[in-house]
Amino acid sequence: MMNHETMTATILTAKNEKGYTWEQLAESIGMSPVWTASCCYGMNTMLEDQAKGLCKTLNLGDDVAQTLQSCPHKHWDNAVPTDPLIYRIYEACMIYGDSVKDIIHEKFGDGIMSAIDYKMHVDRVEDPKGDRVVITMDGKFLPFKRW
Amino acid sequence: MMNHETMTATILTAKNEKGYTWEQLAESIGMSPVWTASCCYGMNTMLEDQAKGLCKTLNLGDDVAQTLQSCPHKHWDNAVPTDPLIYRIYEACMIYGDSVKDIIHEKFGDGIMSAIDYKMHVDRVEDPKGDRVVITMDGKFLPFKRW
Amino acid sequence: MMNHETMTATILTAKNEKGYTWEQLAESIGMSPVWTASCCYGMNTMLEDQAKGLCKTLNLGDDVAQTLQSCPHKHWDNAVPTDPLIYRIYEACMIYGDSVKDIIHEKFGDGIMSAIDYKMHVDRVEDPKGDRVVITMDGKFLPFKRW
Amino acid sequence: MMNHETMTATILTAKNEKGYTWEQLAESIGMSPVWTASCCYGMNTMLEDQAKGLCKTLNLGDDVAQTLQSCPHKHWDNAVPTDPLIYRIYEACMIYGDSVKDIIHEKFGDGIMSAIDYKMHVDRVEDPKGDRVVITMDGKFLPFKRW
Amino acid sequence: MMNHETMTATILTAKNEKGYTWEQLAESIGMSPVWTASCCYGMNTMLEDQAKGLCKTLNLGDDVAQTLQSCPHKHWDNAVPTDPLIYRIYEACMIYGDSVKDIIHEKFGDGIMSAIDYKMHVDRVEDPKGDRVVITMDGKFLPFKRW
Amino acid sequence: MMNHETMTATILTAKNEKGYTWEQLAESIGMSPVWTASCCYGMNTMLEDQAKGLCKTLNLGDDVAQTLQSCPHKHWDNAVPTDPLIYRIYEACMIYGDSVKDIIHEKFGDGIMSAIDYKMHVDRVEDPKGDRVVITMDGKFLPFKRW
Amino acid sequence: MMNHETMTATILTAKNEKGYTWEQLAESIGMSPVWTASCCYGMNTMLEDQAKGLCKTLNLGDDVAQTLQSCPHKHWDNAVPTDPLIYRIYEACMIYGDSVKDIIHEKFGDGIMSAIDYKMHVDRVEDPKGDRVVITMDGKFLPFKRW
Amino acid sequence: MMNHETMTATILTAKNEKGYTWEQLAESIGMSPVWTASCCYGMNTMLEDQAKGLCKTLNLGDDVAQTLQSCPHKHWDNAVPTDPLIYRIYEACMIYGDSVKDIIHEKFGDGIMSAIDYKMHVDRVEDPKGDRVVITMDGKFLPFKRW
Amino acid sequence: MMNHETMTATILTAKNEKGYTWEQLAESIGMSPVWTASCCYGMNTMLEDQAKGLCKTLNLGDDVAQTLQSCPHKHWDNAVPTDPLIYRIYEACMIYGDSVKDIIHEKFGDGIMSAIDYKMHVDRVEDPKGDRVVITMDGKFLPFKRW
Amino acid sequence: MMNHETMTATILTAKNEKGYTWEQLAESIGMSPVWTASCCYGMNTMLEDQAKGLCKTLNLGDDVAQTLQSCPHKHWDNAVPTDPLIYRIYEACMIYGDSVKDIIHEKFGDGIMSAIDYKMHVDRVEDPKGDRVVITMDGKFLPFKRW
Repeated sequence: MMNHETMTATILTAKNEKGYTWEQLAESIGMSPVWTASCCYGMNTMLEDQAKGLCKTLNLGDDVAQTLQSCPHKHWDNAVPTDPLIYRIYEACMIYGDSVKDIIHEKFGDGIMSAIDYKMHVDRVEDPKGDRVVITMDGKFLPFKRW
Repeated sequence: MMNHETMTATILTAKNEKGYTWEQLAESIGMSPVWTASCCYGMNTMLEDQAKGLCKTLNLGDDVAQTLQSCPHKHWDNAVPTDPLIYRIYEACMIYGDSVKDIIHEKFGDGIMSAIDYKMHVDRVEDPKGDRVVITMDGKFLPFKRW
Repeated sequence: MMNHETMTATILTAKNEKGYTWEQLAESIGMSPVWTASCCYGMNTMLEDQAKGLCKTLNLGDDVAQTLQSCPHKHWDNAVPTDPLIYRIYEACMIYGDSVKDIIHEKFGDGIMSAIDYKMHVDRVEDPKGDRVVITMDGKFLPFKRW
Repeated sequence: MMNHETMTATILTAKNEKGYTWEQLAESIGMSPVWTASCCYGMNTMLEDQAKGLCKTLNLGDDVAQTLQSCPHKHWDNAVPTDPLIYRIYEACMIYGDSVKDIIHEKFGDGIMSAIDYKMHVDRVEDPKGDRVVITMDGKFLPFKRW
Repeated sequence: MMNHETMTATILTAKNEKGYTWEQLAESIGMSPVWTASCCYGMNTMLEDQAKGLCKTLNLGDDVAQTLQSCPHKHWDNAVPTDPLIYRIYEACMIYGDSVKDIIHEKFGDGIMSAIDYKMHVDRVEDPKGDRVVITMDGKFLPFKRW
Repeated sequence: MMNHETMTATILTAKNEKGYTWEQLAESIGMSPVWTASCCYGMNTMLEDQAKGLCKTLNLGDDVAQTLQSCPHKHWDNAVPTDPLIYRIYEACMIYGDSVKDIIHEKFGDGIMSAIDYKMHVDRVEDPKGDRVVITMDGKFLPFKRW
Repeated sequence: MMNHETMTATILTAKNEKGYTWEQLAESIGMSPVWTASCCYGMNTMLEDQAKGLCKTLNLGDDVAQTLQSCPHKHWDNAVPTDPLIYRIYEACMIYGDSVKDIIHEKFGDGIMSAIDYKMHVDRVEDPKGDRVVITMDGKFLPFKRW
Repeated sequence: MMNHETMTATILTAKNEKGYTWEQLAESIGMSPVWTASCCYGMNTMLEDQAKGLCKTLNLGDDVAQTLQSCPHKHWDNAVPTDPLIYRIYEACMIYGDSVKDIIHEKFGDGIMSAIDYKMHVDRVEDPKGDRVVITMDGKFLPFKRW
Repeated sequence: MMNHETMTATILTAKNEKGYTWEQLAESIGMSPVWTASCCYGMNTMLEDQAKGLCKTLNLGDDVAQTLQSCPHKHWDNAVPTDPLIYRIYEACMIYGDSVKDIIHEKFGDGIMSAIDYKMHVDRVEDPKGDRVVITMDGKFLPFKRW
Repeated sequence: MMNHETMTATILTAKNEKGYTWEQLAESIGMSPVWTASCCYGMNTMLEDQAKGLCKTLNLGDDVAQTLQSCPHKHWDNAVPTDPLIYRIYEACMIYGDSVKDIIHEKFGDGIMSAIDYKMHVDRVEDPKGDRVVITMDGKFLPFKRW
């Protein structure tokens, strides 16, 4: 079976050569851009139809489609991200962590926002003072079980 | 001058005794809950009116109001958060980091979402399968300067 | 409000002086031992009745009961535990991590065992070759959402 | 001699191509799934019969069988696991570590649960609110020697 | 697409063989030396004209020019730099960090110097006691938004 | 002798109460703001006249003046700074480190910019698109000795 | 209950004032020196008779005796020890780790030396070229269970 | 010259194919097993006769013998070992470190056990309750020089 | 017994008040400055006469003299030193480590420079181009034992 | 251009085959052994004559000579060295760091020993009790600038 690193590299090369955006690829399989990209980066798994659809769009073989369906070991190298774009999101998470935590507890009680039953969107919002990036994290509230 | 750790402890005790939520405190000074909480956690600074208004609501002295206006050295102890609620946000940031990065570059070009010209909201969205936590990160796009 | 460190120390001292086990304390409020201990260690929150019941059993004041109900910032100091008993559990988690992961994926598909909708039990099982510690981790399966 | 990384990759490829689950492979040699998988991941060693049996099932050569019998240097790269499924187990180990420790001491005295004389099982338990993952850690109690 | 590591190696080899300095290369595309070098090190992206101009000067192919235009994942291996020259800059940043922070707050209010809307220059200033390296960091002030 | 932590706290309190800026304090002793602040933060030492002058301005005792003249053990807690303002300077140092290094070598040969025979200034430069922070690092070039 | 840090400090002070060696203290309760010291450092627990005997010898109260019997959370601060004496033992463990591992596997099969059913002795062996420290680690062999 | 990684792999393969134990290899050159293994793992150097003798036994070439005589840069990747067998030795070193240190000081004065003028043995000691691994660390005492 | 932190603080205060240098203190007990200072920093132990002599010079009590004679647990907080002066020594150790190692092996064979049977001196050497710091590390060569 | 890793390997192989010591190689170009070795390890740069001279002695090509003249990015992998010989130097640096710092300040004032205008020598000094390694660090004193 093709490993996930090779799968990612193969997809990115094909995507780049054909000039697709993640939005276009996502649309071709009826899913959202962040999720579609995350599968290609080996951070999520597609269903058979989705994997085959994506490979058809990109003209890739069945080995890519199979790896897209197999559960990856999700990992990252740096506990603190270095890329400036990703670091800013990390920083916001650390700066506002306790504030967000308190407010979730006030609105829901003791529990968390799921990162599994979870959706994420990135939007461009026009603004005369400079357009804005709006990232939406949308996860099911999970209350801590008492037993 | 009161240091920021004492300021945070003083505010949290008063907030708890009087039974205010961050939403109520924020409303009392006409600001948003996440930002208001972040100031009280020593992660942002208030203007004079805001600081005095908050201290009036909580019946706190001028020393608290002054520290709320002075720029804190923002820091956190653990590069990887341990609290499950904050870890889930961190995890989402790491799992979806490259996907979000690609999509921002496709929508805006090379640059980042500012964590300074930045707003953040936490909402509860009702859902029959379980209510959802929706966190919105909203930052100005900043293109890398070429010089 | 009493902070969680003081709460833990107060409860442990009272528990020790009165000679209760976690099993007895848990029974007094109709809950399980691991969960009851975890609340007292500042890793979970009790409902009002549970907190008051525990404090009555231990003859502790209302400030303890209130802190038992407030959401703690859960943290630990060492990413790798040093205590031999806890290290053995960590080691098993690392040695068998990929094996357990594969088997969960084979039985359930892509997803995780929740650590929030989660129960944990510790039992002593008699064995002529030496009694055995049996730890049961019991968490709801959460499939990764596709969106 | 084939090294353990190559052995693991060879077995995973064969297992995937033939479509076996760990449960089926384990059954073919009369052992349990977690243990069988752990040997293939280079975290345990098989006896000669077990190794040959597994290689026969998967149609693999004698070099694989020999490496399955040789003691591996067990290692992992990240002290804190990043994969969400494995992290949740790690998190439970850290959140409930002191609670589990206390209860073991109350039930057995000073000592540990062995991670060597140790068995581990993963089960799927049906539940109308969502099926549950049940992981059982079963290790011999070892009292600290006094000398 | 050529990856950024190969791109950097290819450019450095060509630059070395032809004997160009960064200043000369920068001049050939009408930009500044630090920025030009940073693009070649995979830390910034060029516009099409700049990338093609640089490749023409160095007699490099279109694949290099394309990678110069694609957004890199910016990363570094050591959180604390080991090279003595870079360490000295890091050391100055840590030794004078709080002093610089205070003065920026006194001159501008709460906010930061942008590292995105940012320019950097390196100059040699003659001095009879030994010539001096003058590094200028020039970034837009960004005030923390209050919301 | 007063230790450096107490010295810093004493000076910051007095500075705050009297409402001085670092620029004003620096001017009172005929030195520059960054250097003056760095002495007060325990990162540099003053000569006797400077220390006494500063203490006179702030109405502080001789014990403060003496500690200002004694060589501190310079240290910081986090290898990677968390404060957003200081992190941005760190990030620029890491993103542009190799570029700056190459250019210094091209202009001077093998060596470093001294962080000891070193001056640093912070300026506010007006700009219609947003005023800019300009930080100047100015250190003597030190060539590596060959022996 | 007295915590373990206070217990250790109390015992060390008394031991020092009365001029006892660990060997003498160990003899007074019929145990060995390393184990006796380890209990006093909060790394092992004594039985009631041993604890009371030690406290009688050192003229210490019942609170010390009780803490000596309660299971400590064993921890150390530095993953790599800095003290030269302890570092040398750590270094030997790392330099000879794989060699010792191989030889144990050759003599016993796959398994480990227990650190729980474990004894340790320190002896002085006279030698004309310089007396030698002989440390004996003596642990039960535990074979990995196959299940 | 053959590097030490290749040397180790070459020796281990030959040792495995010919079915030698470290004890047998050590005997063939009149040395001890731990030391012989440590040379083959690149942690010590042999004299010419020893290196040639070992290579003759294993039927290996002169390049292996030469590398066995050259001083390696001794290194290990993980400051905290992950292999359970080696971790147990590490754990014992950390749990009993201060106890062993005190006893050595009481028996010898201020100094250390040398890890250079050092011998190490591994023995199997029969025991009806389970055979025991006995590791002997035997190093010259080195008193701290006073000058 | 006075602990070593208090001992160090007490000595440094007395030394400062009386205006002694380490050279003068060392001379008063007939020892060298680096060693004398290291004892006072809790990194070495004095003999009774030396400890009493130093305390007499500084007019300190017997408790200081006793702690000066007791073996300290030597430790440091930062694996990489931050103080610029100490960092430069660390840097030289890392930059020239392999070179020094090779040359020692060429001059002595396989072994090390002892850090225990070790002396260290700091000298000021006049030089018209700027006086020089000369640090001499002088340790007994210890050959690796073969056994 | 040949990279520095290849350059180092090429030189070490040639040096080994021809049987030169660093002392002999250094003499052949009229420089010192530590510096000559450091250039070959990619930690310093040679002038053209030195590089060509060394390559002539070792019969190496012009590509090696060119890389010897180009400024390397100096780096090391482990912040704390593991090789026993290098660790001992590191340990001495950490154990005696504050003592050396104080004495330099007493002899020179506030400043550092340069690691750039720096020379280092390794000598063998005969001693009837065992020959000694003497390492001399000789760096220009650099006073902290006041500005």
